[in-house]
Amino acid sequence: MFVPTTFFDAIYDYEDAEYVIFGAPFDNTSSFRTGSRWAPDKMREMAINFETYSPKYDLDMTDILVHDAGNAFVSVNIDETLEWIYEDAKQIVDDGKFPIMLGGEHSLTYAPVKACYDACDEKDDFAVLVLDAHFDLRTDFRGLKNNHACVSRHILEDITKKYVSIGIRSGPREEWEYAAEEGIKFYSNEDVFEMGIKEIIKETMEYLNSDHIYLSLDMDALDPAFCPGLGTPEPFGMTDREVREVLRAFAPKTIGFDIVEIAPEYDNGQSAILATKLMREFIFAREASKKLS
Amino acid sequence: MFVPTTFFDAIYDYEDAEYVIFGAPFDNTSSFRTGSRWAPDKMREMAINFETYSPKYDLDMTDILVHDAGNAFVSVNIDETLEWIYEDAKQIVDDGKFPIMLGGEHSLTYAPVKACYDACDEKDDFAVLVLDAHFDLRTDFRGLKNNHACVSRHILEDITKKYVSIGIRSGPREEWEYAAEEGIKFYSNEDVFEMGIKEIIKETMEYLNSDHIYLSLDMDALDPAFCPGLGTPEPFGMTDREVREVLRAFAPKTIGFDIVEIAPEYDNGQSAILATKLMREFIFAREASKKLS
Amino acid sequence: MFVPTTFFDAIYDYEDAEYVIFGAPFDNTSSFRTGSRWAPDKMREMAINFETYSPKYDLDMTDILVHDAGNAFVSVNIDETLEWIYEDAKQIVDDGKFPIMLGGEHSLTYAPVKACYDACDEKDDFAVLVLDAHFDLRTDFRGLKNNHACVSRHILEDITKKYVSIGIRSGPREEWEYAAEEGIKFYSNEDVFEMGIKEIIKETMEYLNSDHIYLSLDMDALDPAFCPGLGTPEPFGMTDREVREVLRAFAPKTIGFDIVEIAPEYDNGQSAILATKLMREFIFAREASKKLS
Amino acid sequence: MFVPTTFFDAIYDYEDAEYVIFGAPFDNTSSFRTGSRWAPDKMREMAINFETYSPKYDLDMTDILVHDAGNAFVSVNIDETLEWIYEDAKQIVDDGKFPIMLGGEHSLTYAPVKACYDACDEKDDFAVLVLDAHFDLRTDFRGLKNNHACVSRHILEDITKKYVSIGIRSGPREEWEYAAEEGIKFYSNEDVFEMGIKEIIKETMEYLNSDHIYLSLDMDALDPAFCPGLGTPEPFGMTDREVREVLRAFAPKTIGFDIVEIAPEYDNGQSAILATKLMREFIFAREASKKLS
Amino acid sequence: MFVPTTFFDAIYDYEDAEYVIFGAPFDNTSSFRTGSRWAPDKMREMAINFETYSPKYDLDMTDILVHDAGNAFVSVNIDETLEWIYEDAKQIVDDGKFPIMLGGEHSLTYAPVKACYDACDEKDDFAVLVLDAHFDLRTDFRGLKNNHACVSRHILEDITKKYVSIGIRSGPREEWEYAAEEGIKFYSNEDVFEMGIKEIIKETMEYLNSDHIYLSLDMDALDPAFCPGLGTPEPFGMTDREVREVLRAFAPKTIGFDIVEIAPEYDNGQSAILATKLMREFIFAREASKKLS
Amino acid sequence: MFVPTTFFDAIYDYEDAEYVIFGAPFDNTSSFRTGSRWAPDKMREMAINFETYSPKYDLDMTDILVHDAGNAFVSVNIDETLEWIYEDAKQIVDDGKFPIMLGGEHSLTYAPVKACYDACDEKDDFAVLVLDAHFDLRTDFRGLKNNHACVSRHILEDITKKYVSIGIRSGPREEWEYAAEEGIKFYSNEDVFEMGIKEIIKETMEYLNSDHIYLSLDMDALDPAFCPGLGTPEPFGMTDREVREVLRAFAPKTIGFDIVEIAPEYDNGQSAILATKLMREFIFAREASKKLS
Ligand SMILES: [Mn+2]
Ligand SMILES: [Mn+2]
Ligand SMILES: [Mn+2]
Ligand SMILES: [Mn+2]
Ligand SMILES: [Mn+2]
Ligand SMILES: [Mn+2]
Ligand SMILES: [Mn+2]
Ligand SMILES: [Mn+2]
Ligand SMILES: [Mn+2]
Ligand SMILES: [Mn+2]
Ligand SMILES: [Mn+2]
Ligand SMILES: [Mn+2]
Repeated sequence: MFVPTTFFDAIYDYEDAEYVIFGAPFDNTSSFRTGSRWAPDKMREMAINFETYSPKYDLDMTDILVHDAGNAFVSVNIDETLEWIYEDAKQIVDDGKFPIMLGGEHSLTYAPVKACYDACDEKDDFAVLVLDAHFDLRTDFRGLKNNHACVSRHILEDITKKYVSIGIRSGPREEWEYAAEEGIKFYSNEDVFEMGIKEIIKETMEYLNSDHIYLSLDMDALDPAFCPGLGTPEPFGMTDREVREVLRAFAPKTIGFDIVEIAPEYDNGQSAILATKLMREFIFAREASKKLS
Repeated sequence: MFVPTTFFDAIYDYEDAEYVIFGAPFDNTSSFRTGSRWAPDKMREMAINFETYSPKYDLDMTDILVHDAGNAFVSVNIDETLEWIYEDAKQIVDDGKFPIMLGGEHSLTYAPVKACYDACDEKDDFAVLVLDAHFDLRTDFRGLKNNHACVSRHILEDITKKYVSIGIRSGPREEWEYAAEEGIKFYSNEDVFEMGIKEIIKETMEYLNSDHIYLSLDMDALDPAFCPGLGTPEPFGMTDREVREVLRAFAPKTIGFDIVEIAPEYDNGQSAILATKLMREFIFAREASKKLS
Repeated sequence: MFVPTTFFDAIYDYEDAEYVIFGAPFDNTSSFRTGSRWAPDKMREMAINFETYSPKYDLDMTDILVHDAGNAFVSVNIDETLEWIYEDAKQIVDDGKFPIMLGGEHSLTYAPVKACYDACDEKDDFAVLVLDAHFDLRTDFRGLKNNHACVSRHILEDITKKYVSIGIRSGPREEWEYAAEEGIKFYSNEDVFEMGIKEIIKETMEYLNSDHIYLSLDMDALDPAFCPGLGTPEPFGMTDREVREVLRAFAPKTIGFDIVEIAPEYDNGQSAILATKLMREFIFAREASKKLS
Repeated sequence: MFVPTTFFDAIYDYEDAEYVIFGAPFDNTSSFRTGSRWAPDKMREMAINFETYSPKYDLDMTDILVHDAGNAFVSVNIDETLEWIYEDAKQIVDDGKFPIMLGGEHSLTYAPVKACYDACDEKDDFAVLVLDAHFDLRTDFRGLKNNHACVSRHILEDITKKYVSIGIRSGPREEWEYAAEEGIKFYSNEDVFEMGIKEIIKETMEYLNSDHIYLSLDMDALDPAFCPGLGTPEPFGMTDREVREVLRAFAPKTIGFDIVEIAPEYDNGQSAILATKLMREFIFAREASKKLS
Repeated sequence: MFVPTTFFDAIYDYEDAEYVIFGAPFDNTSSFRTGSRWAPDKMREMAINFETYSPKYDLDMTDILVHDAGNAFVSVNIDETLEWIYEDAKQIVDDGKFPIMLGGEHSLTYAPVKACYDACDEKDDFAVLVLDAHFDLRTDFRGLKNNHACVSRHILEDITKKYVSIGIRSGPREEWEYAAEEGIKFYSNEDVFEMGIKEIIKETMEYLNSDHIYLSLDMDALDPAFCPGLGTPEPFGMTDREVREVLRAFAPKTIGFDIVEIAPEYDNGQSAILATKLMREFIFAREASKKLS
Repeated sequence: MFVPTTFFDAIYDYEDAEYVIFGAPFDNTSSFRTGSRWAPDKMREMAINFETYSPKYDLDMTDILVHDAGNAFVSVNIDETLEWIYEDAKQIVDDGKFPIMLGGEHSLTYAPVKACYDACDEKDDFAVLVLDAHFDLRTDFRGLKNNHACVSRHILEDITKKYVSIGIRSGPREEWEYAAEEGIKFYSNEDVFEMGIKEIIKETMEYLNSDHIYLSLDMDALDPAFCPGLGTPEPFGMTDREVREVLRAFAPKTIGFDIVEIAPEYDNGQSAILATKLMREFIFAREASKKLS
């Protein structure tokens, strides 16, 4: 009997699946440390560590219709790669399925966000929630428009203004000014410390007021103590439990999800294990909400 | 002048010792990441980092009658290994000494628990306290009865029902159901977050109501931020200080102790350093209570 | 477009395939360093490094009918695991395909060897060629019959005496005596130094005189300079080119093949890259010989 | 256009600079794990990760007059090295600049402290604040007077009694007794847990009552979860935010600063990233206070 | 006294220098493993290991007019980066100095080759000698023209046909065919094994017949046993001594030099140490030939 | 049954032993990379990998009277440390036993050499044979007389001129000149390449013409391909087999032996495994010669 090399408990075929996970092994615009290309495979390897059962939600992963499509075919050129991943993600949402992208770097998020938006039949309700240490509000960076430091800017300009980011603690002065001028809703990590994550969740929920949220988790939102294997680690970050709380709260309202920016070569699985766990918490929370309703 | 390669401040001969530390370099049933076989030697290496003096207890390790016996001779076969370690531990307790086993994997715990129980002259008072992320309540796992995922089940069925585990956050549905049906006393890690460790200690103290406790510390009870070098790391774990509090509270009531499941090849000493420190805290706390009484 | 997480250029379905690769992620009897369980996945990761084309043989891997079945389902119990892998391998050979097992540890070799033998219609012609630093001639080791240090003994006693091993340089006195008494044909690594690999190949070819050879490559046959990521590394080993020469010479006469004992956590891909390359050289050489005949 | 290999945003010449950073790649008295010699270069490498802008202080690093002088020339002999670094630091303070030393080990601190003291025109006001897990109060250690375990003792005896240390949790009995007898002001890490860092800062501010403070940050004050790459890691340490709070509070009153004891080979940048961030927080906080006044 | 963080014995100012070393920390087109961006700094760190004196040539590095300019400012966009590095290299050669570029990836080589060619007053004599495991003859790769797998193609098409590569052992069928059709002179690694490096050097010397050679050393020409820290390691490579022999032979005839494709995060300095040594051998050999003439 | 943490097959008590192994965990004068302090313990860990039997010599390690005394107590001060190790080694030789020191750095060699010399009753016959990449002929280095770069100088000046070193390829001009002027007998690594190790052994045997040789193996004599875990790795080194040949040839004539300069943190056991193997080859070869005579 052979076990596939995909997520071991993502046991459903594409046709039967409700969730379609795919890796996006691309990190070619990363400016500091690269290596997020290895994250999807590392997460598959780490998943074997986990039980399929969630006591909190009384759900078993093998009962949830999850499919792992493998890794998206990517180029070294980010623009080409974005086109291809857009096509991949668009197909998934057009087939009525929920896309979960495992990066790779944050620039990739533009593709599934666009795909989810284009397929969304309530475009006014479409919103994006980002957890990140960085604004990613540059128009371009180091020679590329679609650099991983620009993804939120392009989402805001091209797709939707219904946008909140949480965990922000790094950016050039221009980004802080731009965010202020444009009235972009964000919570810095100091806000998380002071307001508490529960209050931020409540405010964000009201602000976005959406049932069509795309949720993007840049793992550098987390503190390096929990997640040292990152491309651009930024101290003074969120705790694992704060991030989990956000995922649990918003999962029921999402139409797309990604986890990006883990660089697994910079630790021994610690970050990939946490990311894999968080992905599972997200899926469990979303499924549980469906049972309730 | 030569320094032994054992714990540098475990300076007493077996005959004079009250505490006998031994390594148990066995990890052959580990299902995810192996390597706990290297933990005892790594802990010896890391011990050199520490001062022999405890300011909290005003005690010096070199004044405490500790002997390091080296590593138990082990087989690759878990059943054979358990028999041999049982003999080793039995000898130690029969000689009136306190055994401290440094795993190695959690399956090994059965041997010193059994040895302590068999040598205990108040068998009704005998109890087991486990810190662990996992239930370890399977009857068997992946082809082996004495798999590391089964140790608590065998203790409960064969030795004692006076049992509490703290830190639990992972297990198949069957284990959660079994625990519920059997009324097994346990505190999940969510319980630790919500109740606080002090309350849990208080309840556990009352529940066990014992002066003959065997305390087993599966280091994956701890959060990977504190202890990344593990065989089966499980996010959202206990803090170092919560675990220390449990050790300090229960050490005075123990008749045996172990620390298991560190896989030192997955970090650069961080986990072994913490485990070694916790072992010292345990010994200091137990000694201090004797001085008081 | 999605890329499977199997070998990227093993692009054929099982039905169409002539070669079926499968991983065997089992290392639970390993006595020194474990971790060969991670080797198949590491080899898949490293394969992306290679061009699909072989200039020597003017063949492209994507034109060869290769299928990657994923990893065999394994237990922690070696006996159970051997049964399961026997069934897996037997199916493959019964389906008229060529099995390539990527260990995992050397004990596993017994299963595909037995499967190939049982399916072989010229049993007298069946032979086994092993490259190894170790004799693996023990009857049992550290509590287990099917320890990785015993595989050649069981093959010799249970399956065939048409057996040669090359690269031998380690074993207890009993093994050297047993080999001498039983007249087991082997070449030590000193023989390789002195006779040259070409002469050894010639002698072995004549001695085995077989077109039904199972070839097992224990990577510790190689010198740690070429292959440091091993469970039981043994200095003074064979060079990469000597091993390649053996594979190229014997591939045309093989009916089964495996590569075992890489422990990828002990280097940064060096050993898995070499092993993956050697597997490709083997396949190319075997295919090329078919074209000729 | 070429970028210097010094801190990328320390863009001012020595002549124009107000802050002069220099590395001190010396670790030859380290008794447990060495490697702090590599810390200054690792910090330079990690600095590229950070934005030059501080939103908290609305300051940009490139507007602050910072110069990176490279690494001090060091001997293997600590006494000689201390003399040389004293000369280097003395020159800097004599030139009216603020010295920031990046160790290297803690013994080095004696040199810039002495240099700052010798150049200080209000010697009575001169004070030293140390963050450390260790007392460093030995008169000598393992054959050397200027061992890294002795630096605070020599400062206290030779230079000033206006001294406070925070984070202390390790030392032989003699050090605890000496500290008590001498009335040395210190806060253990347990004090930090119980009193809170704000109260400790307030008390320390009053106790030192100085505008000429030399601040020395031994990174092992921090918990290994935040800072695993250390020479002598000591569990149960301070959090990143507690340390930051101390730096922010005292930076405006400092005349010299160092960060020591990172051993970057024991993690993958996590500790160097945090140290670099803390250095920047220190500089920003000090600059911001100047703007206010 | 401060030591610069550049090569410790490259002690001359730009103005006085004859050799100008610069790093080129760019790896953004790398398709397998990235990280060559860290190579220049790692080589600077490793250089400290070496004596400044060469017994073979009786020369001391500190007597040779070498300047280390730091690292070239790079973009994430390869085209932009090539332009910038072209400008940097052009300036160096226009100033009559000898450029030594430390990559970074192989695509960068195009820039200094072009700069050397443009500044060469005997363009017909201009030639390029490449040591590489790979042809790098693609017109474009994975979405980029200036991918590191294409550099030799662009040199051949845009700059010169006086070109030889040594060590080739990997490429798609198209590259082997293209090389054959175009009559591109190359020596495979099998040629090195069979002909011996001395004969290849002799033939290449005659074939190129040039005193204006640009020499590019892609370190993957070497066997991974000598150089495991590579982006695209290819087994069965050249030995350290074979490569040294080529460098020694051709250095006297060169007008530019680079070392590329080391990925230092994949070993612990082994590859960077060798590369640094080879750079020194190159400089010594070139200087020695000047003394003779 | 407990296994000591010393070399597993060094099973004899000090009293009964003929060979006494001791570690010397000191590296405090190392100028480039430190860490040889960890080598003795790493070698003990790696020894478990090996069979006790030598087929070449038909000897079993457990039949040879070997004792492992643990690690010498060391200071951070090299002078003090040398005194202490001298005392330790002197005791061993005075007790009629053969000392084997496992460094630690090369400076330590002075102590056992001096001890062997002082105890030698045929002082004129006393000789020293060193395998090393470096001359170690400085009078002092970086502030210390007894730096690891000076050991051979002090041996030559203080103890004996009957001295040969093999493998030399690095040193400042002064050392090469000093060696030439003083007529110090040495073979560079280029000599090894050109003359062959057998001829060098023959010449050295004649030159030393001694039965009282102290043999010191600085592992950096070896090429980093075989031994990457070194303090000062120097490319273009000796092969494992060349070094083994020297050990086998001279072991019968030795009265003391050491292996130094391994820095095990810079690889994953590769260097310690080779060193451990070489130590065993040495002991086997020496024992075998005794049987013959
Ligand atoms: Mn981002
Ligand atoms: Mn980010
Ligand atoms: Mn457990
Ligand atoms: Mn557990
Ligand atoms: Mn084998
Ligand atoms: Mn083997
Ligand atoms: Mn300190
Ligand atoms: Mn400290
Ligand atoms: Mn190339
Ligand atoms: Mn290449
Ligand atoms: Mn030496
Ligand atoms: Mn040396």
